[in-house]
Amino acid sequence: MATPLVTVDTTDTVSTITIEQPQTRNALSVPVMEALIDALEDVARRTDVHAVVLATAGHVFSSGHDLAEVRAADQEEQQRIFSVCSRLMLLVQQIPQPVIARVQGVATAAGCQLVATCDLAVAAASARFATPGVRIGLFCSTPMVALSRAVPRKQAMRMLLTGEMVPADRALAMGLVSDVVPDEDLVAATDELARTVAGASSATVAVGKRAFYDQIDLPIERAYEEMTTVMVDNALSPDAREGVGAFLDKREPQWQHRAH
Amino acid sequence: MATPLVTVDTTDTVSTITIEQPQTRNALSVPVMEALIDALEDVARRTDVHAVVLATAGHVFSSGHDLAEVRAADQEEQQRIFSVCSRLMLLVQQIPQPVIARVQGVATAAGCQLVATCDLAVAAASARFATPGVRIGLFCSTPMVALSRAVPRKQAMRMLLTGEMVPADRALAMGLVSDVVPDEDLVAATDELARTVAGASSATVAVGKRAFYDQIDLPIERAYEEMTTVMVDNALSPDAREGVGAFLDKREPQWQHRAH
Amino acid sequence: MATPLVTVDTTDTVSTITIEQPQTRNALSVPVMEALIDALEDVARRTDVHAVVLATAGHVFSSGHDLAEVRAADQEEQQRIFSVCSRLMLLVQQIPQPVIARVQGVATAAGCQLVATCDLAVAAASARFATPGVRIGLFCSTPMVALSRAVPRKQAMRMLLTGEMVPADRALAMGLVSDVVPDEDLVAATDELARTVAGASSATVAVGKRAFYDQIDLPIERAYEEMTTVMVDNALSPDAREGVGAFLDKREPQWQHRAH
Repeated sequence: MATPLVTVDTTDTVSTITIEQPQTRNALSVPVMEALIDALEDVARRTDVHAVVLATAGHVFSSGHDLAEVRAADQEEQQRIFSVCSRLMLLVQQIPQPVIARVQGVATAAGCQLVATCDLAVAAASARFATPGVRIGLFCSTPMVALSRAVPRKQAMRMLLTGEMVPADRALAMGLVSDVVPDEDLVAATDELARTVAGASSATVAVGKRAFYDQIDLPIERAYEEMTTVMVDNALSPDAREGVGAFLDKREPQWQHRAH
Repeated sequence: MATPLVTVDTTDTVSTITIEQPQTRNALSVPVMEALIDALEDVARRTDVHAVVLATAGHVFSSGHDLAEVRAADQEEQQRIFSVCSRLMLLVQQIPQPVIARVQGVATAAGCQLVATCDLAVAAASARFATPGVRIGLFCSTPMVALSRAVPRKQAMRMLLTGEMVPADRALAMGLVSDVVPDEDLVAATDELARTVAGASSATVAVGKRAFYDQIDLPIERAYEEMTTVMVDNALSPDAREGVGAFLDKREPQWQHRAH
Repeated sequence: MATPLVTVDTTDTVSTITIEQPQTRNALSVPVMEALIDALEDVARRTDVHAVVLATAGHVFSSGHDLAEVRAADQEEQQRIFSVCSRLMLLVQQIPQPVIARVQGVATAAGCQLVATCDLAVAAASARFATPGVRIGLFCSTPMVALSRAVPRKQAMRMLLTGEMVPADRALAMGLVSDVVPDEDLVAATDELARTVAGASSATVAVGKRAFYDQIDLPIERAYEEMTTVMVDNALSPDAREGVGAFLDKREPQWQHRAH
């Protein structure tokens, strides 16, 4: 039996989705992207999963698209490659659970896009990031969508126009990742962050994650209108009633499961 | 006579609005928020006030909403709590004078939102910031509106999903505050910044503050169209005529008062 | 014969456009701005130019508008000054080649706006930046358009409301410039960055630069739709075919010239 492209391991309430393709530097071929989409859609339906770690096997996080696949593709196949990629990236932000990238080695092109897209990202201190498509005549225009929304413009432009590697500490300073940890702590630190996130009410986290992306591009007056409604609905929900009550009564809250 | 919820002290051209509720950690109950709105509206009408410091009494800047009030509220009262809060936050950005938060201790939830909302914010080196609603089942969805417009997305997401405290130096690096000063210098440094801002033409500052928020969400071409009009009107105003002339003639400018 | 206001020097595939007005601190008078517009439009038409350095002569990068010109202007002339300025700034982002500011000394008001507007900016370690219009009654409302899109809001507001000088290292941290180098390396480091950018396929870079500004203000779903089309068109272009092939075959790519 062939090794699966992507595996899902669920421990307690955290699912770790892992691309198992170290021999291709975890290239995001169409089959790999479709396997990721399937895994994310499965996880989205599981109310017992409260947080997701997105990981890869081997020494490289991901080298981005499969260039042999890109070279061989005709127009229709190109359209499919980049459409599937965009669907994957949007899905990461659409599922109810927070998705945390766990980054070792290098994350380049669509691999860097995946990091920029995740809600949070923990990088090993030795990790590096680049959008080097410009060097092979294929500007990282779709990775740019995620990158230019994560970091200031000149820093995004510098990565896109030079293709140069950015070390983890600069990636943290510019906002491309949320955490940098010593290499040897990467797995444990990511799991701990995931467990912290998963310890909250999953219904509340789902409301909050959706609300974040819903409001981010709105004019501030409209954002406040919509978030006021979200806040009132949230405040009347069972988990907020329980959480606020537990806090005021100085006891541990007991969360309900997120409904389908 | 009861202690007022909020006091206003005006020295020279700087008004300091202070929440005087250390016993509730300066919680933003509806009465406190309404008192702040009244104070801001009063100050907005005063052409002799050129800058505002927003401060609080005691060791904690503000713990956010009054959770006992939130717990006891029915749907209509919830709607009122969060509508008044959103009106307060929008008003901070709508009054003609710059508003500078002066932050000691911790600023959490709607307290952190108030800091994110102010035009400028000076923090004591020991100050800390968090949006911990997620831990009590009530995601900080309205604080998120201000927070996600002040700092990069992953840093906002990390605060919202973990509820963890962010120290002042990281708050400065990510853009949540504009200044960090030694604890013992907090009052003096904030006053000095306020006096610097208040030393400019208040008519010009009012034009600039309004223009900032008017243009921030526009496509760049439209922003330039609108700001070109703002700039021409400003250049023809008495204070610009005086200021440019004084600069060229190497003398001190004499500003007119901002008109109503 | 009079010294030209602006010179253009092209070496290999890099054009350096230089404002030659040290005696006015490279003030952006209408004639200087029009000379810059002419130079940028000429360069835009040259398919043999792959990158542009925007430089100035003397110890000051640029002091912004010519205040004597502003003082003498009636309403119609004011309109012309700020319209020409906005046209210049938009043009920097519209030409197909990346534009890199090379900044020594101080860059203030519209001079700071020019730095914020360029795709990349290399600053000498001793360079400083300010938007001090507020001090002379003329708020930097048009510079604000570029500044507030380059750096976080509170940092932009602090510059606009105080007019204070920001040193190069802080300008780098906030995203106003992309690089800071020792003073003595400024020219060489800027040229090296320009040559790196110019070494890529100029057709691909032109597609990517345009795509960056086209997608930056769109909602993410629409951005992905538009960038998927851009990516597919790019992937089918001769230079991407060549670049991807050369990469997979481990040889140097040979780029075609960008078509008109």
